[in-house]
Amino acid sequence: MGEFDLIRRFFTRPTPRAVLGVGDDCALLQSAPGMQMAVSTDMLVSGRHFFADTDPQRLGHKCLAVNLSDLAACGARPLAFTLALALPEANEAWLAPFASGLFQLADAHGCELVGGDTTRGPLNICITVFGEVPASGATPLLPTSALLRSGAQAGDDIYVSGTLGDAALALRALQGTLTLPNPLLDATRARLEQPTPRVALGQALRGVATACADVSDGLLGDFGHILERSGLGAQIEFELTLPLLAARADFAGGTALFDAQWGRDTALQCVLAGGDDYELVFCAPPSKRDLVAQAAAQSATPVTRIGTMRAERGLLLLDSQGRSVSRASLHLASFDHFAAAGSP
Amino acid sequence: MGEFDLIRRFFTRPTPRAVLGVGDDCALLQSAPGMQMAVSTDMLVSGRHFFADTDPQRLGHKCLAVNLSDLAACGARPLAFTLALALPEANEAWLAPFASGLFQLADAHGCELVGGDTTRGPLNICITVFGEVPASGATPLLPTSALLRSGAQAGDDIYVSGTLGDAALALRALQGTLTLPNPLLDATRARLEQPTPRVALGQALRGVATACADVSDGLLGDFGHILERSGLGAQIEFELTLPLLAARADFAGGTALFDAQWGRDTALQCVLAGGDDYELVFCAPPSKRDLVAQAAAQSATPVTRIGTMRAERGLLLLDSQGRSVSRASLHLASFDHFAAAGSP
Repeated sequence: MGEFDLIRRFFTRPTPRAVLGVGDDCALLQSAPGMQMAVSTDMLVSGRHFFADTDPQRLGHKCLAVNLSDLAACGARPLAFTLALALPEANEAWLAPFASGLFQLADAHGCELVGGDTTRGPLNICITVFGEVPASGATPLLPTSALLRSGAQAGDDIYVSGTLGDAALALRALQGTLTLPNPLLDATRARLEQPTPRVALGQALRGVATACADVSDGLLGDFGHILERSGLGAQIEFELTLPLLAARADFAGGTALFDAQWGRDTALQCVLAGGDDYELVFCAPPSKRDLVAQAAAQSATPVTRIGTMRAERGLLLLDSQGRSVSRASLHLASFDHFAAAGSP
Repeated sequence: MGEFDLIRRFFTRPTPRAVLGVGDDCALLQSAPGMQMAVSTDMLVSGRHFFADTDPQRLGHKCLAVNLSDLAACGARPLAFTLALALPEANEAWLAPFASGLFQLADAHGCELVGGDTTRGPLNICITVFGEVPASGATPLLPTSALLRSGAQAGDDIYVSGTLGDAALALRALQGTLTLPNPLLDATRARLEQPTPRVALGQALRGVATACADVSDGLLGDFGHILERSGLGAQIEFELTLPLLAARADFAGGTALFDAQWGRDTALQCVLAGGDDYELVFCAPPSKRDLVAQAAAQSATPVTRIGTMRAERGLLLLDSQGRSVSRASLHLASFDHFAAAGSP
C-alpha cells in the first residue's frame, strides 16, 4: 500500500464545511465573519503518551480528543483538523480501527479532517485542530470571546469538570506500580485511553468563566498556568477533589476499603497531579454560580467547586479543617516532559 | 531545562498579527474579511527526511521551508505556524541554532509561531502552517483564488520554477552512491538542506496559473497530481529540464565533462524524479505568457517552460527530436513513503 493509497483508503472523507479538504497542497478554511480561528497542536509519541500495544481504535479517539480538549478550554467550536502520522509500516489491521476511532469522535463534534501528512518512522501522531470563537467578547485585554488562562479575578470561585485521577490510577496499574482488580482496571483504563473532551461545556462557559484551562498534565500543574497568566494566587480545598476519583467513589467495597487497599495518598496524588484527565479547570465570580450551574446542566457535564482565587500569589492547599498543607507532604508532582523524573 | 522553560527560551516571540500566540490552550487567528485560511502540515522524521547529524540551523530552516512551499503552491500569503517537536533530550546546543534557522526564515516571510507542543521522543518535527488567500477568484469550481492542483486546461503551457535535481544529487553523494568534489557537494547540499520556498512567485501567479503544485517528491510525481486532479494528460520535453540542474550547468569543466563523470542519465533522474526541490510546477494558457514572465520578474524567480497539457490522458516524455521515450527507459521513480524501495 503506497502513501496516496493509504490516505485515500483511510483518511479521505467529504468535508462539506471546508472550502477544500484533503488532496491539494493546502486545505482551505473560511471562518464566518466576526469569528476567530482557534488553533492547537498536540503530538503523541509511542511509548511516552501511549503504550505501543494500545488498542488503535482507542488511540484514534484519544489523539483527537486531547486536541479537542484544548479547543474546549478556549470555548471554541471545533471546525477541522489536520493529521500527520509517522508509522513503522502501513499496517491495515492497525490503520482501519485507528481511522474508525478517529472519525467516530470527529463526527460527534462535526470536526473535519482537511489534510495532513504520512511518512514512515517511529509511531508518532500529530494533530492540529481548528475551531472558532466570536471575535468580540468579554475578555478585557483581547478582542475575543475565547476563554483564556489569563482573566481570573481575586475572589473568583474555582471549578473543575467531571472526574479526576482515574486515568492516572490506570497508568500506575499498567506500569505495575499497583494492582487493580479487572473491573476497576477496565473502567479506569477506558478513562486513560478514551478521554471525553469537554467541548460543549467549554462553549457554554463563554461569557461566564473568567479563565479556563484543560487538565492534561495534572490538576495543580495546569491550574498553575491560570495562576501564572492571571497573576494571582488561590486556595484549593483539596479534599473536595477526592470524591472526583470515580474508581474510589464507585468502589463496591466503599471508600474506606478503597483507601485501606490503595492508600488515600495515592488517591489524592492521582486526583491532584495525575494527568490525562482532559477535564476543564476554570474560574467564575460567585455572582455567576447560577450561570455556571446552567452551563453544566446544558452541557450535561458535572462541575465541582473546589476553591477561591486570591490576590496574594501562591497556591494554598487547605484540608477539611482549613489548615494549609504543603505540596511536598502530599508527594505531589506535575508532569513535565523534560524535567527529571519525579521533580516538581 | 523543563518543557515550559524550553518553550519560553527558544520558541516564544511576539506575535503582533495573531490575536493570541504561544502560551494558552489555543492560539487565536483572525483572517481578514473575504479571505480564506490555507492550512498545510508536514512532518519530518530523523533518518528519513534528514540525517540525524544535519546542521540544526539548516534543519530549522528546512522544516518551515517545506511547509511554506505548500502555501506557495496555493498562492497563499504566510500568516502563522505551529510547531510540534519530539526530542530525545532538551539539548540547548541543538535547540538554539534550530530556533535561529527557523525564525530567520519565518521572519523573512512574516510568518509567526503561534503555538505548538514539545515532548520527549525520537526526533520528529511537525509544522502546521497557515496562510491566506482572497475568498473569491478565478477558480471555476470553488469560491477561491487559491492555486489548486485541479484547473489546468488542455493546451496550457507547463512551467517549473528555479532549478531542479541538485538536492537529489547531494543526497546520492551523502548516501555514498556517487562522489562529488567538495565545492559541488557544498553547493548541492545547501539546496538539499536549505531549500527556498517560492512564496512570492506563488502569490504572483494567482489569477495567472490554472493549476500549481510544489515539487517535493520529484517533478514527474508531483506534476502527476496536477494531471490526476485536472483529469488531463501532458507532454513534457524532458531535455528542457536538464539545464535546470545547477550543479551541471555551473560545472567548471562544462556540461559534457559533467555528463562523462556522473552520467547524463543520473542528471536526468535527479531533475525529473529527484525530490526535495521545493520548486513550483504550474500551468497557464499560452495567452498569459507575458503575465507569467511578469510574475517571474516581480518575484525574482526564474521559470522555464517545459511542455504542454493535452486532453488525452497519460504523460508523454518527448526527447529533443520530439520522440516519445518511456519512463522505464529513463529509470525514473517518484518517491513514495510506503511503497517498496525503487518501485515506480
